[in-house]
Amino acid sequence: MKIEQIKDKLKEILDEKRYLHSIGTMEYAVKLAERFGEDVQKAMIAGLVHDVAKCLDKQQLLNCALKSGIVIDNIMRSQIELLHGPAGSYLARQLFGIEDVDILNAIAYHTTGRENMSKLEKIIYVADLIEPSRQFEHVDRLREKSFEDLEKAVMMAMDNTLKYVIERGGLIHPNTIYARNWLILRESGEVR
Amino acid sequence: MKIEQIKDKLKEILDEKRYLHSIGTMEYAVKLAERFGEDVQKAMIAGLVHDVAKCLDKQQLLNCALKSGIVIDNIMRSQIELLHGPAGSYLARQLFGIEDVDILNAIAYHTTGRENMSKLEKIIYVADLIEPSRQFEHVDRLREKSFEDLEKAVMMAMDNTLKYVIERGGLIHPNTIYARNWLILRESGEVR
Repeated sequence: MKIEQIKDKLKEILDEKRYLHSIGTMEYAVKLAERFGEDVQKAMIAGLVHDVAKCLDKQQLLNCALKSGIVIDNIMRSQIELLHGPAGSYLARQLFGIEDVDILNAIAYHTTGRENMSKLEKIIYVADLIEPSRQFEHVDRLREKSFEDLEKAVMMAMDNTLKYVIERGGLIHPNTIYARNWLILRESGEVR
Repeated sequence: MKIEQIKDKLKEILDEKRYLHSIGTMEYAVKLAERFGEDVQKAMIAGLVHDVAKCLDKQQLLNCALKSGIVIDNIMRSQIELLHGPAGSYLARQLFGIEDVDILNAIAYHTTGRENMSKLEKIIYVADLIEPSRQFEHVDRLREKSFEDLEKAVMMAMDNTLKYVIERGGLIHPNTIYARNWLILRESGEVR
């Protein structure tokens, strides 16, 4: 399916704010792909489609997520919002015929991250947070860091997210911890 | 083995600072056990013995931890200090003949915590942090909270620890996340 067709479909199923966020994420994903030598077309599609499941209701989210093939744990069941990643990877196949596993994983794990993320997964994780409509403390620093060092930007974004969630007494998805530990161990040469 | 004999042995293998910390932890563990209806004798032993492996060198720590029966993951291997819990549970059996599984677990998991901690495990986790020699921001608030609500105190202590580790770019042990999520899900009635 062509980009314009995907956009038309997304306009139907997302609210305006979420649609604009998707366009912004796509644009940043393309910039990061160019900066770090990733396939630009893949980054464009993954960025555009990453939130395809965002406007589903609770039951739809759970149904789609269960069909995604991703393990749905009690943290995701309790914090239903986390299901929009896995549910999105299922919908990306169903609605747009996307079969590229790297794109599907980038969609599935864009909120939690995971161990040993691919370059595309890191790009989508970061682009989702730095696109123009995002407003939070230090977002400008994160934007800068993203173009300097992709892995450090993922780490910085995860640290921000973790501190935010801790302050609010929220659940932390273990995948974020595994992802962050992996980055630290990689940096120190303990994993390759 | 009697408490006095354990103390004599600990004096031999711990430095003075660590020995005094052990006595302080034991005293707070007893107070918390009285407050929350836990077996005082068990709390006394677990508090006294929890850091028995603290002064081992790296190789000894690894050897003892591997013999403990606890899963030693790459986070523990990379952050050797974390091994003193599992290693301590092994030494507690070897040196003092302690066979009570609840005491051994309280020693093994006193640094990371874990899902579904027993009351004794929570008491030792907290007593270790609030004993008189401990100095950190909000330690007084944590001391107060410990006698009001043990689970909330564990949660508060974990939040402090996580924020501290995040600020320093350190590895986070997943068990702490599982423990914290468990407490949140328990509070909201989602696990029993």
